[in-house]
Amino acid sequence: MQAIGFIGLGIMGKPMALNLLRAGYAVSIYARRPDAASPLIAEGAKAYSSPEELAPHADVIITIVSDTADVEEVLLGKSGIIHSAKPNTIVIDMSTIAAIATQRIAAQLATKLIHMLDAPVSGGEQGAIQGTLSIMVGGKADILEKVRPILDVLGKNIVHIGDHGSGQIAKACNQIMISEAIVAISEAFHLAKASGVDLAKVREALLGGSANSRALEVYGKRILENDYNPGFKASLHRKDMHLVLEQAHQLGIELPAANYATNCLDRLVMKGHPDLDSSAVYLVT
Amino acid sequence: MQAIGFIGLGIMGKPMALNLLRAGYAVSIYARRPDAASPLIAEGAKAYSSPEELAPHADVIITIVSDTADVEEVLLGKSGIIHSAKPNTIVIDMSTIAAIATQRIAAQLATKLIHMLDAPVSGGEQGAIQGTLSIMVGGKADILEKVRPILDVLGKNIVHIGDHGSGQIAKACNQIMISEAIVAISEAFHLAKASGVDLAKVREALLGGSANSRALEVYGKRILENDYNPGFKASLHRKDMHLVLEQAHQLGIELPAANYATNCLDRLVMKGHPDLDSSAVYLVT
Repeated sequence: MQAIGFIGLGIMGKPMALNLLRAGYAVSIYARRPDAASPLIAEGAKAYSSPEELAPHADVIITIVSDTADVEEVLLGKSGIIHSAKPNTIVIDMSTIAAIATQRIAAQLATKLIHMLDAPVSGGEQGAIQGTLSIMVGGKADILEKVRPILDVLGKNIVHIGDHGSGQIAKACNQIMISEAIVAISEAFHLAKASGVDLAKVREALLGGSANSRALEVYGKRILENDYNPGFKASLHRKDMHLVLEQAHQLGIELPAANYATNCLDRLVMKGHPDLDSSAVYLVT
Repeated sequence: MQAIGFIGLGIMGKPMALNLLRAGYAVSIYARRPDAASPLIAEGAKAYSSPEELAPHADVIITIVSDTADVEEVLLGKSGIIHSAKPNTIVIDMSTIAAIATQRIAAQLATKLIHMLDAPVSGGEQGAIQGTLSIMVGGKADILEKVRPILDVLGKNIVHIGDHGSGQIAKACNQIMISEAIVAISEAFHLAKASGVDLAKVREALLGGSANSRALEVYGKRILENDYNPGFKASLHRKDMHLVLEQAHQLGIELPAANYATNCLDRLVMKGHPDLDSSAVYLVT
């Protein structure tokens, strides 16, 4: 079994690292906040004080951090893994970052014979805990095959999309669809509420027809129950949507509905709710 | 078993009437176009030449026609059922029309002791054929119970939303969500395509995660295969969305994403494609 290094122990990363430990993998971790590390140490993980110290102990390094800057720091920064990882180490970056940044990082790592996959995920905290994530993989197919058993522990739908960056493109598509689905649920619920109709019954009816979606199940329930504990934080969804709009801008295409969904996330965050679940967009539509 | 009158033998109505015949109901039909009637006559339906002639032979009259004007014509018009239906006849209007129109029609029928339910459906042609529609019912609960066995033949998710018109409100919510889902899929696919990424793989990955939806399954497939045979015609979805916007206007609420989705349906129809499936919105986004 390959030795795994794991960097990023947030809402998603922590249950993913636990699943790998419980599947029998040796897992080394690096966490900026020591309290994030302790539950993993209790299950057998070994903690290191920087990505650079961690890297030589790993055959495969998984990163799942907040944004492009964080990925660059842990991989390429002053104490990044690039300075110490063994040749043929495979980096699986499961963060959501710009496709173009992924391509640039992969090229830099390649100069040290380090392989990279972009492998962002969908399925939320629940999917991370249950090991049922959807994993969208960009990079070389033969490298994916070498780490597939590891990804099989984390997810149930592992799709090789294409070359470096294509996993991030698929994730961008995912974020477009989820943000617009939350807007759609919000608008439908506003219409029903203003009409004096029972939202729970509307949701029940819609779940049985063509409007059925995971979003209506999960986010529709949150909205009905007015329970916006994340889940997936508005600030992160907002960050992802700005990546989408930047990508669209570079490609010269317009995405008006994605743009509006991003406005809503902007408004939610600017009203002081960055840490609510992104379905709280209902509150500002 | 109640004797059923069935008016409206389109994409949805025809398989629904067939399912009732095959479940053993006596079904009388009225069809404007005789060729729509013949496959039902072959299965035992009895055809009448007007709604008025049909009505006395039915305990329950189902209507599923295109718009408010059509519903008013068959129920209240010169040859409408109102002139001849027996007291305690139950009209189940499964068309998608304005909630406020439904309430007005129900009140007029009540003057002749005719009961009415608004019971629009979701689930598409496939749901109509398989008898798995979601049925959103507005009107009196005791009247619904009297026709539930009939609705059980047509659908699998029959939800009593509330009083007259509330079924139509739920359907409006359904149409909002589907139109915005089609826009979302279109935008995601445009981003993927412009990025040179395989759309089929993106769809496969997204179906396994939080972006999973019936819309991505059904409409996503149509878009990938460039197959816009309806399904649900753009002209009808457009009509439904204008009902939604009119409703929102009357309630004094704004639905910006629904408004944009309606713009897209307008554009599709005005470019000469009223009879394509509404997922062809992809072509004009």
